[in-house]
Amino acid sequence: MSDSEIAALKAQIRSRPRVADLAQRRADSDARGRAFGVPAGVVVKPVDAGGVKAEWALPADADDRRAVLYLHGGGYVIGSCESHRHLTAEIGRTAGIRVLTIDYRLAPEHPFPAPVEDTVAAYRFLLGQGLAASDIALAGDSAGGGLVVGAMLAIREAGLPLPGAGWCISPWVDMELTGHSYVDRAEADPMVGREGIQDMVRHYMGGADLRAPHASPIHGDLRGLPPLLIQVGASETLLDDSLMLARAAGAADVPVELQIWPEMVHIWHIFYPMLAAGRRAIGSGASFLRSTLKGS
Amino acid sequence: MSDSEIAALKAQIRSRPRVADLAQRRADSDARGRAFGVPAGVVVKPVDAGGVKAEWALPADADDRRAVLYLHGGGYVIGSCESHRHLTAEIGRTAGIRVLTIDYRLAPEHPFPAPVEDTVAAYRFLLGQGLAASDIALAGDSAGGGLVVGAMLAIREAGLPLPGAGWCISPWVDMELTGHSYVDRAEADPMVGREGIQDMVRHYMGGADLRAPHASPIHGDLRGLPPLLIQVGASETLLDDSLMLARAAGAADVPVELQIWPEMVHIWHIFYPMLAAGRRAIGSGASFLRSTLKGS
Repeated sequence: MSDSEIAALKAQIRSRPRVADLAQRRADSDARGRAFGVPAGVVVKPVDAGGVKAEWALPADADDRRAVLYLHGGGYVIGSCESHRHLTAEIGRTAGIRVLTIDYRLAPEHPFPAPVEDTVAAYRFLLGQGLAASDIALAGDSAGGGLVVGAMLAIREAGLPLPGAGWCISPWVDMELTGHSYVDRAEADPMVGREGIQDMVRHYMGGADLRAPHASPIHGDLRGLPPLLIQVGASETLLDDSLMLARAAGAADVPVELQIWPEMVHIWHIFYPMLAAGRRAIGSGASFLRSTLKGS
Repeated sequence: MSDSEIAALKAQIRSRPRVADLAQRRADSDARGRAFGVPAGVVVKPVDAGGVKAEWALPADADDRRAVLYLHGGGYVIGSCESHRHLTAEIGRTAGIRVLTIDYRLAPEHPFPAPVEDTVAAYRFLLGQGLAASDIALAGDSAGGGLVVGAMLAIREAGLPLPGAGWCISPWVDMELTGHSYVDRAEADPMVGREGIQDMVRHYMGGADLRAPHASPIHGDLRGLPPLLIQVGASETLLDDSLMLARAAGAADVPVELQIWPEMVHIWHIFYPMLAAGRRAIGSGASFLRSTLKGS
C-alpha cells in the first residue's frame, strides 16, 4: 500500500534548506508555486475584492452561479495568490467553479484579526456580485483551513448569511497547539514542526487570546454552520487539529466529513502535478463542492 | 436545519419502558426488527456459516462476486439476525451485494472472545465459497462496529487475508469507556447511557483485559487494514469512540472516512423506513462498498 510518489516527495522536502528569513521564505513559497504553472483552460484575472487584493481563477466551462472563496495557507505569515495559483486553478478546473483567492494581509505586519477582516470583506464582495450565500463555499489550507471556520463565525457576527459549504485542507485550528500529534507525528511529518508553528503563533496572535474563536474556531459556537469537508494526511503534526475540528463541529450538529489520507503530508494537494493522491483529494473536494453548492 | 423525523423518533425512544430482564430485552429487540419487515426483492435464506448460525440477505440483482459479512449490535448481549434483518436486507438491496449476517454467540453466556471467534469462522466460510478476500467487506453497528475492526486483527493473526473494506456504524471500540461524550452527549442521547454500557462490559469482558485489541481495537496495531468508513450521530454518547477509532486507524495509515451526522442517534440507520437520514446513511455506506470492493 506504500505510495512511492509521496515517499519521494517526503525525501525531497526533507532535503530543502531551512530558511529563517521571512522575506526569503515568502519569495521561495511564491517561486515554488510559479514553478508548477497554471493548468490549461483556466484564465487568471486580478481583481479588487472589496478592497482586498485578489484574483479569479476562471475555468473555461465554469458555472457562474457558484463560487469558491479560497484562503491560502502559510501560518498567516507566508503564502499568497501566487504560491497557491496552480492549486486554486486546478480546484476550479476540477469542480467547474470559479475560485476567488485573496491576498489577505499577513503577520507580523498585520496580525490577527486582519486576515479574518479581509475574508469577510471579500465574502461581502462576492455577495455583492449577486451570488447567493448558499452558492459560495469557503475553502482553504492550513492556516487558511482554520480561517474557513473562523471567518464563518465572523460572517455570522457581521449579520451576513453563511456560505453553503466549507472545505478545510489540513486545517490549523488551535493556536494553543494542544494536539498530541505534534509529538507522535513529529517524525512522520517532513514539513511542520511545533517550533515553527510556535513562531507563527507569536507573529500572528501577539498578545491576543489564543482561544479567540476567530483564530481557534474549535472554541467557537459552531451551531448552524454549513457542511464541512476536512481532509488531513496521516503524516501530519496537525492531524489532531482536524480531529478536534471534526469533534467540535460534529457535536454542534454541523454535517462533518473527515478524511484521513494514508502517508500524506501537510497540504499534499499542492503537489498534485506529481502526486496522484493529490489529484484524488482535489477530486473529492470538488465533488463535495458540486454536491453541496446547488447553484440557485 | 432541524430534522423533524429524528426529533419524533427521539421522543418515541425516550418514552420506551426501561426493561432490565435480558431475555425480555432480546425478545423486544427481535420484535422491533420483525415489525419493520423485509424490503421487497430481497430473499432471506438461513445458512450454516462454518458452524455459525447465519442468514443470507439475497437481493434480486446482487453481484455474486462480492459479499458483506454483517455484525449486528446490541452490546454483545442482545441483538440477532432477526433484530437487524430489515437493515441488512436494505443494505444488500441498496448496494446490490449479498449480505451474510451471523448470530454470533452472545454474552454473558458466551463472553469475549466468542463473537470474535464466530466472526473469523464465518469469514473463513466466505473465503471457502470462492470469494476473494478483497471482495468481502466487514460491516457492523455498535458492538458489531467495533467487532469489524477487532475481527480484522484476529483474521490477520489467523493467517487469513484481510477483507477489502470495513464499514463501522456507530462503533463501540473502547471497553474502558474513556470517551468524554459519555458526559457531554449524555443529555442528547436518548438510547445509550454509560451505566447500561458498563453492564455490557461486565457481561462481555468478565475479567478480561479491557484493552485487549480484539475487544478495544483502538489499542491494536491497525497498520495494513483496509479502508474504513465510520458513521456516527452527533447525539451519541459513543461519538468519541468514532473519533478515537478514526485517530488510531488514520495514524496507522489506514484510509479513513469519518462522517458525523447532525442530530442522529445511535445506529439511526435502523429506523430507515421512517427516517430519510437513515436511508441517506445507508446509501453512503452502499456507495463506499461498491467503490471499495472491486468484484475481482
